[in-house]
Amino acid sequence: MNAHPLPPILSIVAKSGSGKTTFIEKLLPELNRRGLRVGVLKHHGHATPFDMPGKDTFRHFAAGAEVVVGASAAQVAVFRRQNGAEDLEGVIAQHMADLDLVLTEGYKRGPHPKIEVHRAARSGELLCDPADLLALVSDTPFAIPTPQFGLEEAAAVADFLVAWLQARA
Amino acid sequence: MNAHPLPPILSIVAKSGSGKTTFIEKLLPELNRRGLRVGVLKHHGHATPFDMPGKDTFRHFAAGAEVVVGASAAQVAVFRRQNGAEDLEGVIAQHMADLDLVLTEGYKRGPHPKIEVHRAARSGELLCDPADLLALVSDTPFAIPTPQFGLEEAAAVADFLVAWLQARA
Repeated sequence: MNAHPLPPILSIVAKSGSGKTTFIEKLLPELNRRGLRVGVLKHHGHATPFDMPGKDTFRHFAAGAEVVVGASAAQVAVFRRQNGAEDLEGVIAQHMADLDLVLTEGYKRGPHPKIEVHRAARSGELLCDPADLLALVSDTPFAIPTPQFGLEEAAAVADFLVAWLQARA
Repeated sequence: MNAHPLPPILSIVAKSGSGKTTFIEKLLPELNRRGLRVGVLKHHGHATPFDMPGKDTFRHFAAGAEVVVGASAAQVAVFRRQNGAEDLEGVIAQHMADLDLVLTEGYKRGPHPKIEVHRAARSGELLCDPADLLALVSDTPFAIPTPQFGLEEAAAVADFLVAWLQARA
């Protein structure tokens, strides 16, 4: 149904408190360094708006604007009254079709390839079945055939993802 | 160059401290009540991002994501690394083409029809040449031929804009 083909989508999943956001923060500059334009899609379970209360853009949206756009020299921000929770691919096709890779956070039940971020102090068990994982990022080795990386090995994960993208292309 | 024709664009201009944002907050529900889907485009002179420091979406953008999207049941928020300060029409064509009316804030030198919001306690003079104004919203009458409304007359301004849109259609 979409005019644009979807970019490759990779879900980064974790139990809360495992350091997922911090790991993505380390991974993004490594991917940029390898020439990739990367997007991140974050799903929120609550029906919360994303803007900052008190800002003009927030006030306009609250007052009934269908779309509020903030435009500066550094960023264009778009806030749209839309149910974005149910149609992941539609949102990606609309806003992220031009990217080399889209990382999603919070879609652990989706059909896309997954990397799990795990920390032993948070849980002794994985969130996902290892057979469903493209790779595991953890501070603890697991006796599974899935490729494994340490929490500090963002550069190695980036190399792994470049090879994965090349194999798909 | 755009696939979509632009929606009608109206600039709301004012000297700072005149109550422009508050007036737009009153105008939006009146326009909604008249069946219009309205967008607001806000220009920021600074190269600031729009998201809230500390939030995951902010951290992902700061770490190098080209586009960060937050999706909830109530809103889709898109933060894109892009110079949005120079091409107003391009930003509107990209993100607001489906709306009935776009109000812009902060483009006082642009070619679009303008409404000035004025408050006597802020300044005795208008920002714009009255000949350039579609209407004036002020707490003080001016001896000019431009249509004038009070700061509380958002409903009357909405009626005026509905008639203006119908005359353009």
